[in-house]
Amino acid sequence: MDEFDELSITNAVLDRLRGTPDPRLQEVMTSAVRHLHDFVRDVRPTFDEWISAIRFLTRVGQISDDVRQEFILLSDTLGVSMLVDAINHPPSSGVTDTTVLGPFYNEHPPERAQDSDISDGAAGEPLRVDVEIRSADSKLLPNALVDVWQSDSEGFYDAQRPELAEPRLRARFRSDKGAHVRFRTIMPTAYPIPHDGPVGDLLKLTGRHPWRPAHLHFLVAASGYETLVTHLFVRGDKYLESDAVFGVKNSLIHGFTDECDTEGTRCLKYTFKLRPV
Amino acid sequence: MDEFDELSITNAVLDRLRGTPDPRLQEVMTSAVRHLHDFVRDVRPTFDEWISAIRFLTRVGQISDDVRQEFILLSDTLGVSMLVDAINHPPSSGVTDTTVLGPFYNEHPPERAQDSDISDGAAGEPLRVDVEIRSADSKLLPNALVDVWQSDSEGFYDAQRPELAEPRLRARFRSDKGAHVRFRTIMPTAYPIPHDGPVGDLLKLTGRHPWRPAHLHFLVAASGYETLVTHLFVRGDKYLESDAVFGVKNSLIHGFTDECDTEGTRCLKYTFKLRPV
Repeated sequence: MDEFDELSITNAVLDRLRGTPDPRLQEVMTSAVRHLHDFVRDVRPTFDEWISAIRFLTRVGQISDDVRQEFILLSDTLGVSMLVDAINHPPSSGVTDTTVLGPFYNEHPPERAQDSDISDGAAGEPLRVDVEIRSADSKLLPNALVDVWQSDSEGFYDAQRPELAEPRLRARFRSDKGAHVRFRTIMPTAYPIPHDGPVGDLLKLTGRHPWRPAHLHFLVAASGYETLVTHLFVRGDKYLESDAVFGVKNSLIHGFTDECDTEGTRCLKYTFKLRPV
Repeated sequence: MDEFDELSITNAVLDRLRGTPDPRLQEVMTSAVRHLHDFVRDVRPTFDEWISAIRFLTRVGQISDDVRQEFILLSDTLGVSMLVDAINHPPSSGVTDTTVLGPFYNEHPPERAQDSDISDGAAGEPLRVDVEIRSADSKLLPNALVDVWQSDSEGFYDAQRPELAEPRLRARFRSDKGAHVRFRTIMPTAYPIPHDGPVGDLLKLTGRHPWRPAHLHFLVAASGYETLVTHLFVRGDKYLESDAVFGVKNSLIHGFTDECDTEGTRCLKYTFKLRPV
């Protein structure tokens, strides 16, 4: 029978994929095998290095659960998430820039009424938010779904606080007739991504810090438009230049003081512009 | 600040790896990021495809436990394990060929005396094994450690039978003064790799079967020599040409009848030859 050497084994594996019924899956797996084998031939791992990689990936899966997604963290910290974002959302004039979803999104956040306080009494510097939802050609979009989530004043998401019985600093709104969503909250703070697991170990071993600059997350969905996944970052944050997940874009940095009614208070006014599908 | 597009993000990530203290880790991670980003740019995944990949890898980690290692199965079925083997053990005259370790190796198998029956009464066709351990230049190697493990007549390893209180068809021997290990067992059978998890799903989606041809596993270690990890396959098995993990080499296929004392019985005589370090 045919035997394989370190070059010919790649074609042997690709031959085995020829019977894949779905052409897209065949394309993806063919490319995955080619690039994975090229990587292995490039670094020429010892058996011990290979088993270390197996153990690392296994830990990444095993530490993941309903509220922690370590493979998304790995994708984020290796720039893969922002690369997928760049491929699917190239910059486009008149459309709000996108960034990573991150590991803390919850598909079913609590629905809240306009003008709610989503901090529910959590300590922190008060912030008023007033965002407007428009199409790329500036048409107002009432009844758009607007999900928001953020860290608290100590840098934790609700999912990282097992003592909380209910979601906090996380809400779903609908834009009103004027296409606005207004709510009260507290200022988000810079925070380290969860770094007590294998991804944190890898950051440490590669001399990297786990910090993200302060931001509010938004997911905005309206019928007939591409769903917008983005953040708004706080100007002046010391981690803007070295975000652990490469998520910062200039257009998403905001003063959080502009246009405030009262000096010394914090406010965020922003217009999101959605791309038609 | 600098912004990234789908090409420049790769250098941004590589820049972040510049502070890696260990040069080998920096080399491996730099190559990993380059090849991973090239793969992503090649297939241009949608957000949904990316999240499917995240969920797949998470399942691979989560189904793994003390007795099941799904990331090794993934590596095996994508030809990565045999590629790592080919890199580390190129064919060499006078040395026994190597093949994959597989996911069922146990680092602490029960120590058994020469001439033991390692089937402990399991049903199956009786087999007598007599292997000899030598160096590449044919020097006898007494007191070599010889681990053996195999499937039962229904195609299962002991680790796949939770009803077993003790290891079965798995043992550690020491070669005797004449450098031999002799034991009794049953014939191994062809078997499907565990395919009730994500790797099985992927095999099915790519039109592949999960079967491996019948074989005995051996791990042979002697001081001053490279540890040999290999199998001996049964000639005539219908899966020799399409082993799900690409592990078959011609030199490792054996009749399991040659040199038997009694016609109609099954026996395996083989000389393993180890490479000096």
